[in-house]
Amino acid sequence: MKRTSRDIRTANRYEVLRRIIARSPTSRQELAAATGLSLATVATLVGELLDLRMITEVGFEDSAGGRPRGLVAVHASGGALIGVDIAETYVRVELFDLALNVLARADEDVSPGESLPEQVVGHVAAAVGAVVARAGVGGARVLGVGVSVPGQVDRSTGLAAYAPNWDWHDVPLLDLLTEHITHPLYLDNPLRASAVAELWCGAARGRGDAVVVNLGTGVGAGLVLGGGLHRGVSNSAGEWGHTTIVLDGRPCRCGGRGCVEAYVGASGIMRTLRELGAGSGLLHPGDQTATLAALGRGLRERDPVALAVVRETVRYLAAGIANLVNLFDPEVVVLSSWVAAALGEPLLHEVREAVARHALHRPLAATEIVLSPIPTDPVCLGAATFALEGALRPVGRRTLQRAAPARRL
Amino acid sequence: MKRTSRDIRTANRYEVLRRIIARSPTSRQELAAATGLSLATVATLVGELLDLRMITEVGFEDSAGGRPRGLVAVHASGGALIGVDIAETYVRVELFDLALNVLARADEDVSPGESLPEQVVGHVAAAVGAVVARAGVGGARVLGVGVSVPGQVDRSTGLAAYAPNWDWHDVPLLDLLTEHITHPLYLDNPLRASAVAELWCGAARGRGDAVVVNLGTGVGAGLVLGGGLHRGVSNSAGEWGHTTIVLDGRPCRCGGRGCVEAYVGASGIMRTLRELGAGSGLLHPGDQTATLAALGRGLRERDPVALAVVRETVRYLAAGIANLVNLFDPEVVVLSSWVAAALGEPLLHEVREAVARHALHRPLAATEIVLSPIPTDPVCLGAATFALEGALRPVGRRTLQRAAPARRL
Repeated sequence: MKRTSRDIRTANRYEVLRRIIARSPTSRQELAAATGLSLATVATLVGELLDLRMITEVGFEDSAGGRPRGLVAVHASGGALIGVDIAETYVRVELFDLALNVLARADEDVSPGESLPEQVVGHVAAAVGAVVARAGVGGARVLGVGVSVPGQVDRSTGLAAYAPNWDWHDVPLLDLLTEHITHPLYLDNPLRASAVAELWCGAARGRGDAVVVNLGTGVGAGLVLGGGLHRGVSNSAGEWGHTTIVLDGRPCRCGGRGCVEAYVGASGIMRTLRELGAGSGLLHPGDQTATLAALGRGLRERDPVALAVVRETVRYLAAGIANLVNLFDPEVVVLSSWVAAALGEPLLHEVREAVARHALHRPLAATEIVLSPIPTDPVCLGAATFALEGALRPVGRRTLQRAAPARRL
Repeated sequence: MKRTSRDIRTANRYEVLRRIIARSPTSRQELAAATGLSLATVATLVGELLDLRMITEVGFEDSAGGRPRGLVAVHASGGALIGVDIAETYVRVELFDLALNVLARADEDVSPGESLPEQVVGHVAAAVGAVVARAGVGGARVLGVGVSVPGQVDRSTGLAAYAPNWDWHDVPLLDLLTEHITHPLYLDNPLRASAVAELWCGAARGRGDAVVVNLGTGVGAGLVLGGGLHRGVSNSAGEWGHTTIVLDGRPCRCGGRGCVEAYVGASGIMRTLRELGAGSGLLHPGDQTATLAALGRGLRERDPVALAVVRETVRYLAAGIANLVNLFDPEVVVLSSWVAAALGEPLLHEVREAVARHALHRPLAATEIVLSPIPTDPVCLGAATFALEGALRPVGRRTLQRAAPARRL
């Protein structure tokens, strides 16, 4: 599983662009200091990015003596990127400029009955078409479309290897999407996408080790380790939702029992609500979004049933997060995705208190637990960066995006 | 938590030496290909290692035309390294040459009453003195002593931050050892040491991602990720023994409940034995070593109580290992330390079967589960490599070994 020198060149080019996007304008000298690459290497990579018109020269730094340093900045209109967040209950698509500003957004609801790949792909195609039209960018400016799909993804074959919500096994999602979308496509899952989003623009910026806890219909942990994404050998790392926390506990949709997801995923929370307060009016049967929104309102209004449901959920969630703290010893744990957003600060408060009862003192003291600070959909943002990464490969076309992926960003 | 260019130089020098030790003789060209470093960088690092007399020139490669390539090999007698494995029930010390052959070994029993740091340090000092005398190497040839101590270790201050077995909190172990041992000292824990041992000489050789499951009095997971050791931000990563697997389950010596260690650590196994078969004659009260040896014999003889105890233990162990597979998606899971050695192949067989009932199909299919193939004490070997790493820093003395450590090997 060694990286080739071509992987390393692509990774370095990507890293330099990432730094420029994170901080524009900047000089080659600053980039060399920030990346640990030599000035000569940085100069070569900056030259390539200038040739691609992804960045531009923007003058010179004020200099206290010595030769003035040339500055470069991201060329925001040098291309467009599309990020697709396929979730169990919705499809969201955002179109970004190269500075990662959102230029257009489209949402489609996915109803519980729509579990066929063709139905989901139809929503994606419609929303992608909508954002291109709304943004008014020419199709030719779109460098690529990053697509996040729940579950496990085989990036080299473009398969949705396993998506428990729809019982998908080895669905050829990339091929299905190709029938509707002509831009280069890059497939991965929301754990990876949300982790990269935090690394580029959120709470993991400048951090070496971060765990991004996704709380949605499915739950999992995106892993930033050693400054890069940890994918694992089969691109399946981070399946925290399917780690056992109560041996022989609640059945989980993965077929196991006592998984974290069975307690803290949206349907696990709805089950707890039914057990603790069916008559409370918070439950919207069959509608996770409405139920979690009602719980969020209930929390803010100190509704006793809402408080009890969240406390019971946090008993499991905090033990699961403490497991991550004890295993990874990260600098930060980020709570992300729509359930975390719906329950917000009150959830964070309960989690912090409860994690302290489980985690070991030393790693706990070294970490902080925060809500994702990203104001838009982190999964769309992260998926868009996968498209950017793909576009930086020497030949950014479909043959290559199916080649063996680099193991770290 | 960025690495400085000095960290990177030290890491590269270490990596080149590691490759030479793994495969001697070898050429600068092979080393460049294996490490991804430029030939010029490799030539510089090889020159430094030659100057340090850690390697030697050993002639030229057979060449099919072209300029013949110079070969280098590790200079086995160019120095000696000592590895110390402080465990809850014993202290083991091994002295190695630079090719990592064991030249001498010494063992000391640590009785349950001996929990004072001074008592443990006394055993270490005696055993270190014994191996130096037995090996017949001059003290001046000893490049350093790597010391593994259970629990959490602060490498920058030399503190044993937390060792639950002896209830140690912030014990200045490095200072205590310095009163007896004049060689440079390097402190870390058995999770890190056994992981590095597998990376250098065992089942993780050539692997990018490996999890080394330590099964002893304490249990934990040494993490090899992206080809290097994952330490975490406070050098506390891998505390798998203190992850919750049964919420509100058995009390654990860490103060928590339902931790993996409470079921699969040596005293957890003894408790299960008491619960399932107190009258069986397998239990040696107060003696973990004798009890586990008896269980190992019982397994091989198909003793029903031994089988029942191991099956019950594996229920928890397999769920815990499946959690690691689902989270890390590693190429290999290695069962290491003395409890794994005592229970051996029958344990491995049960574990493989049971993990398959918990882990997700895709990461499980990509991993293998093996017993550590290292014939000597992996913790001593790994600890010795920490001393080697320390000796490669530009100034290998005590002031420097307390400086901020590199984040990866």
